[in-house]
Amino acid sequence: MKMFRFASVVAAGMVAAGGALADAAEEIEALSSTFETAFNTGDAAGVAALYTEDAVIMPPDAPRIDGREGVQGVWQGVIDAGGADLDLVTEEVIDLGDTATELGMFTLTAPDGSGGRVSVNGKYIVVWKKDGEDWKLHWDIWNASP
Amino acid sequence: MKMFRFASVVAAGMVAAGGALADAAEEIEALSSTFETAFNTGDAAGVAALYTEDAVIMPPDAPRIDGREGVQGVWQGVIDAGGADLDLVTEEVIDLGDTATELGMFTLTAPDGSGGRVSVNGKYIVVWKKDGEDWKLHWDIWNASP
Repeated sequence: MKMFRFASVVAAGMVAAGGALADAAEEIEALSSTFETAFNTGDAAGVAALYTEDAVIMPPDAPRIDGREGVQGVWQGVIDAGGADLDLVTEEVIDLGDTATELGMFTLTAPDGSGGRVSVNGKYIVVWKKDGEDWKLHWDIWNASP
Repeated sequence: MKMFRFASVVAAGMVAAGGALADAAEEIEALSSTFETAFNTGDAAGVAALYTEDAVIMPPDAPRIDGREGVQGVWQGVIDAGGADLDLVTEEVIDLGDTATELGMFTLTAPDGSGGRVSVNGKYIVVWKKDGEDWKLHWDIWNASP
């Protein structure tokens, strides 16, 4: 996301608060890449490790699910159903110190039921929480876009 | 929500930070009641007034929509489609000073297509932002629950 790289350059000449803002967005973008790689290699445990222990994940048409083990089950289910090619695009990050909120959009592909694949688009909000030095997904909700 | 009333009692004997935490949750619960009343009386402008001017709303199966006017259009659409009896239940609030994140669930009723009504359940995350003295919905996303 060029927006964040530009913000980083600007922040480099600014006070610490500005620097921290750019860093959160950059770190969250980097973690989104890690998320994509884990998902796209079928590593649900690797995806779940990016969440806090007491994360809440709220998939469409499913109940709210609490805890990292439940998170892993959700992503294993998506992988088992043939979900692949996940692409996460961070659109906005609000850095609040030890918490950050992210708004973004995603695409993935899934079986179309007749031997081909269909592209699925959606959008999400994630509340990230600092867990020691690392940002972790703490609340995660998404839905479909047309 | 009894949880928050209890938290408020506890916070009353604590430091300012604890008091602020309880207040944000209570204020957000009160605003959720205002939201319900506006929606349930068909007042889409009243609902939209609870959002920031530059709010982002992300309804299921719709694109991301930016700005209060767009927000009003979304809620007018739900009202025009026969949505009613909205009930919002705040489950968790993280107070971050001038920003707060809320996780909750909702029910509403909608026409079932054959003269009756059906109950719809879902869950949401809202990022609230202080606008002067008032909390306003700044980012809002939801999806369906079974």
